[in-house]
Amino acid sequence: MGSEQATVDAVAYEIFHGVSGKWALPVMNLLGEGTLRFNELHAAAEGISHKMLTQTLRGLERDGVVRRLVHPTVPPRVDYSLTEAGQALRGTINGLCGWTRRYLEQIEAARTRFG
Amino acid sequence: MGSEQATVDAVAYEIFHGVSGKWALPVMNLLGEGTLRFNELHAAAEGISHKMLTQTLRGLERDGVVRRLVHPTVPPRVDYSLTEAGQALRGTINGLCGWTRRYLEQIEAARTRFG
Repeated sequence: MGSEQATVDAVAYEIFHGVSGKWALPVMNLLGEGTLRFNELHAAAEGISHKMLTQTLRGLERDGVVRRLVHPTVPPRVDYSLTEAGQALRGTINGLCGWTRRYLEQIEAARTRFG
Repeated sequence: MGSEQATVDAVAYEIFHGVSGKWALPVMNLLGEGTLRFNELHAAAEGISHKMLTQTLRGLERDGVVRRLVHPTVPPRVDYSLTEAGQALRGTINGLCGWTRRYLEQIEAARTRFG
């Protein structure tokens, strides 16, 4: 195992940690349908607070998954969209969640057997 | 967000945590080629200790990803293979690692920009 593989594993783990919060995946899925403004996202992601949406978006932006675009209008318009990396990540993470849903009973049965 | 989704997220996170160790994915990839005995796995996964291989296999078995089959011979023969869930998980995790490898530069650039 080279150190490049170790870096990939570490970053993959951090990314997963980041997107495994309650809101990252719903936000990514909403943005997967197209660009949205903050208030549109806030309305579409039912139950999220203003503060939590800001935090979620900042985390995704930090990892290069979400792009934030400020238009120099008055008042400024701020658009959020998925980057190409974000579109690809959305598919991958949904795959892992789909796997978990599909095999949840078997996972829980194995854990019970194992004690 | 219902509690079922919360369970799926939590289990997906635990599984990812479990397979993000140094050895889980190489072991899954080796078993993905077919059933192997403990000593065959030990020889194929270069650099793994006996103890670490045992721990890795127990973790994967606990999550229903690896099946351990003891044949009643003298001495007993112990085979390891991936379950159907394990085969599917292998593809999913390799997908996330592939994503990370592909976008690593962009992720790191975004983090640098973000400060």
